[in-house]
Amino acid sequence: MKKTQFMFVTISLLCGQLALAQDQTPADDWNPASSNQPGKEYPQVNSEGRVKFRIVAPEATSVGCTFRDSSEFTKGEDGAWYGITRPLDEGFHYYLIRIDGAEVPDPNSLMFFGAMRWGSAVELPAHDQDFYALKNVPHGQLRELFFHSPSTDSMRRAFVYTPPGYDQHPDRRYPVLYLQHGWGENEYGWGAQGCADLIMDNLLAENKTRPFIIVMIYGMTNEIRFGGLRNFDIGPFETVLVKELIPFIDANFRTLADQPHRAMAGLSMGGMETKTIALRNLDTFSHIGLFSGGSIGPDDIPDLAAFKQTNKLVFVSYGSREIGGDRPRRGGDPKATAAALKETGVNSHYYVSPNTAHEWQTWRRSLREFAPLLFNH
Amino acid sequence: MKKTQFMFVTISLLCGQLALAQDQTPADDWNPASSNQPGKEYPQVNSEGRVKFRIVAPEATSVGCTFRDSSEFTKGEDGAWYGITRPLDEGFHYYLIRIDGAEVPDPNSLMFFGAMRWGSAVELPAHDQDFYALKNVPHGQLRELFFHSPSTDSMRRAFVYTPPGYDQHPDRRYPVLYLQHGWGENEYGWGAQGCADLIMDNLLAENKTRPFIIVMIYGMTNEIRFGGLRNFDIGPFETVLVKELIPFIDANFRTLADQPHRAMAGLSMGGMETKTIALRNLDTFSHIGLFSGGSIGPDDIPDLAAFKQTNKLVFVSYGSREIGGDRPRRGGDPKATAAALKETGVNSHYYVSPNTAHEWQTWRRSLREFAPLLFNH
Repeated sequence: MKKTQFMFVTISLLCGQLALAQDQTPADDWNPASSNQPGKEYPQVNSEGRVKFRIVAPEATSVGCTFRDSSEFTKGEDGAWYGITRPLDEGFHYYLIRIDGAEVPDPNSLMFFGAMRWGSAVELPAHDQDFYALKNVPHGQLRELFFHSPSTDSMRRAFVYTPPGYDQHPDRRYPVLYLQHGWGENEYGWGAQGCADLIMDNLLAENKTRPFIIVMIYGMTNEIRFGGLRNFDIGPFETVLVKELIPFIDANFRTLADQPHRAMAGLSMGGMETKTIALRNLDTFSHIGLFSGGSIGPDDIPDLAAFKQTNKLVFVSYGSREIGGDRPRRGGDPKATAAALKETGVNSHYYVSPNTAHEWQTWRRSLREFAPLLFNH
Repeated sequence: MKKTQFMFVTISLLCGQLALAQDQTPADDWNPASSNQPGKEYPQVNSEGRVKFRIVAPEATSVGCTFRDSSEFTKGEDGAWYGITRPLDEGFHYYLIRIDGAEVPDPNSLMFFGAMRWGSAVELPAHDQDFYALKNVPHGQLRELFFHSPSTDSMRRAFVYTPPGYDQHPDRRYPVLYLQHGWGENEYGWGAQGCADLIMDNLLAENKTRPFIIVMIYGMTNEIRFGGLRNFDIGPFETVLVKELIPFIDANFRTLADQPHRAMAGLSMGGMETKTIALRNLDTFSHIGLFSGGSIGPDDIPDLAAFKQTNKLVFVSYGSREIGGDRPRRGGDPKATAAALKETGVNSHYYVSPNTAHEWQTWRRSLREFAPLLFNH
């Protein structure tokens, strides 16, 4: 399993964010990115999915960014440095700026945690961005809270999304989805670049999903050796999640505190964690979602008869750019695997995000597709 | 009033964060700052309140930081750049790194919004830091939510702190404090560098304050001309706060929705806003707090008799470094002003934070002193 997880890191680095090998003159329809800090005119994005940066570094000799194949930054007439990327996939992309060899956040962008750092990111307008837009609809709340973890002897942060109406209906109880980030990310991811709260608010406004609570925590316990994936042992995290967090949530929120009303999902490494933990705790979770994080076939399930009795959903998704081409795929074709599982009678779903890779646009869409399938039994 | 607000900006820039003019060899007891990103060894802080930076910028010719009077950064044996500040006040300080003339966030620090940007900050251990430490005590929740503002035709973000037990006591109602950030900051400030949630959790754990709700929103409405203080008109913000936010909070939280149970406070520009808005809306707010943001004397109150009938508290605070020395102070001595107000029979309190300037350590302590005085009538 360690090798499999390492594969995800590799895919994440190799797939990159550059989609097309175009080299024409960029379209001159630039607009400030929605991921900019307030009042910042740059970075700008155009209709081709290119990003244009502006960096003030008067005495630098070399300025660039971490997007592969972006143009060399050059000094403009105003003395600032400008550079343009090749077209990127629509959606969200991490990056840093390089100034004379230093890799630093772009002072113009909002900050997000990914690739093991708080750093910059740029949001490319997507044809379907309406599903995670901030609209004048009833909104839930994204709550930051702390709970004590005896097994790690630490106070740990959780984010909890409560749907619209939670406070107005004190007699109502809700199912819960435990939702995990990917490697190099943390508990902020789904509520920030993941737009989990806005996706749910919009789905609920259109009556496309049942209301449920979403809980997000940091998916590792080895903070001291932060990012040490090779040394990662899932056991301590499983203890925090199953033995400590779930009882805390059930004690402090109006949950439907039983297996039929509890789901787990995650992206990339979080999908691997979901597969391992959910299959080891069949009495805890009834719905399973893996977003770009492996697949579940009949061979993965030790006791298929027992599994079918309690599992209500297995959902697997990928970005189309992750699964295309001739690259051999460890674990086989996830679509065929999902079909084989369905064949056994499991409620198996498979989704492919069009024209996206191992990136947040894939996972936003995965949540949009996954949520309406939850807790329908 | 515009000039007065401009003064606050000036003070904020001039007071700076450098406290002592020592120039000895730094004490060799460095530890990573608590404000570092996970796993980062730098910046480090020592027992004198100095900060040591380490920046990897192999091809740079000049590296530094925005702290005044810090040492020139020099290349160490490992090829990275190192620099040390003079002793700073204990507490929290914004900064940026300079690389060949570019001002950028330090990739090693967590990111905070201040000085009109998301950027770096460093936390110096304080002798009294226990009052805002994360402890194993019952914790409230810091809730991010959105509300629609008709007057600005926008969805606006609010953070709402609910005290421990809020969800467990659905029959209980709470007073509310509306708490504002300073110029160049935003609605994230009090819940991040302000530690408002932890200060309240700790006060409540020691039974030193009554539980109440705290509401935090962005204190300006001119996002397009972000930071344009000269053009700042408080009227539109007053409308958002009084006519839109308060009704929304009263409709969506279990508040005690009347004037005796509603307070307003703010720091620096937020104190100016509090003074203006609270004095114009005596039927809305009963408790007033100005942290490094002006003072209220008998001459500021048009109808003192009416004021005394409904006001329950006027609290004014400053950092000791803001009010010392021979610098003439616009508006006179705030201590004398507070005493004069008390003389008229108003419940006037005055607090000075020892050895701090126009900075968050002053305002954390101000909240600690202010909270126990609230809603005691």
